[in-house]
Amino acid sequence: MTKTEPAAEHELMLTRLIDAPRDKVFRAWTEPELIKQWFAPHPWTTPSAATDVRPGGSSLIVMRSPEGKDFPNRGIYLEVVKNERLVLTDAYTSAWIPSAKPFMTVILTFEDEGGKTRYTARVRHWTAEDKAAHEKMGFHEGWGLCTDQLEALVAKI
Amino acid sequence: MTKTEPAAEHELMLTRLIDAPRDKVFRAWTEPELIKQWFAPHPWTTPSAATDVRPGGSSLIVMRSPEGKDFPNRGIYLEVVKNERLVLTDAYTSAWIPSAKPFMTVILTFEDEGGKTRYTARVRHWTAEDKAAHEKMGFHEGWGLCTDQLEALVAKI
Repeated sequence: MTKTEPAAEHELMLTRLIDAPRDKVFRAWTEPELIKQWFAPHPWTTPSAATDVRPGGSSLIVMRSPEGKDFPNRGIYLEVVKNERLVLTDAYTSAWIPSAKPFMTVILTFEDEGGKTRYTARVRHWTAEDKAAHEKMGFHEGWGLCTDQLEALVAKI
Repeated sequence: MTKTEPAAEHELMLTRLIDAPRDKVFRAWTEPELIKQWFAPHPWTTPSAATDVRPGGSSLIVMRSPEGKDFPNRGIYLEVVKNERLVLTDAYTSAWIPSAKPFMTVILTFEDEGGKTRYTARVRHWTAEDKAAHEKMGFHEGWGLCTDQLEALVAKI
């Protein structure tokens, strides 16, 4: 997987050059205490995060709405290459329990660009409808805001 | 995963004690030349098989109907423990391209039972409808017949 690889069907993509080395960006995606600081777009919060960062390991990140309603995000890691690449999906809640709805597979790459990090998130869906729904839910704005928060966090760790 | 683990939701299961050591049963599931000899229930045939047996590796097995129509089965391996365990799914056609329809995840275990092999296939679906459809398509009969063929093959390799 490189930036030049053509997009898969039903894919949404975000890429940004982040002014931090890639190990910090990778840590922000994998360490619970860091995830809680950036994962949900403000004024949403992330009260809890648990990660078992290995292929087949589970991830449970809870996002809380401004009204106080919790939204648990369950998934598993499919691929883990430290400081380089993470692949997650919500198609399973643990290895290998199918989830109620396989919605997306997230492929994250962290590439060195002269000491900065080329951060790319490819979010693939199983159907055109799910991709359209995700876009309509505000994928670009939401992931953009979260990436602002991620960027602010890695600047100070 | 052990035999005593409770069944997941939407699961179909087949288990059989096969009179062969587990490395032979594992080989029959992973080596193309062996797969072609048992994978499709007679009078169907398996004209071709390609396997990249590692987590994230692809599998493409073509089954041919008695009328000569080919049915390609594409999937990927999620977990590989030689002679012990294989996990496959058709939710991806390669790592990590979502398939047109995530239908099942197959968890195969090969356990030693006094020199014989306790072979267990757990087939998990994402929905109750898919499980019911698979059962109606003849899961028990079909997988049973194929397992007869697998058993006959491993007796002579």
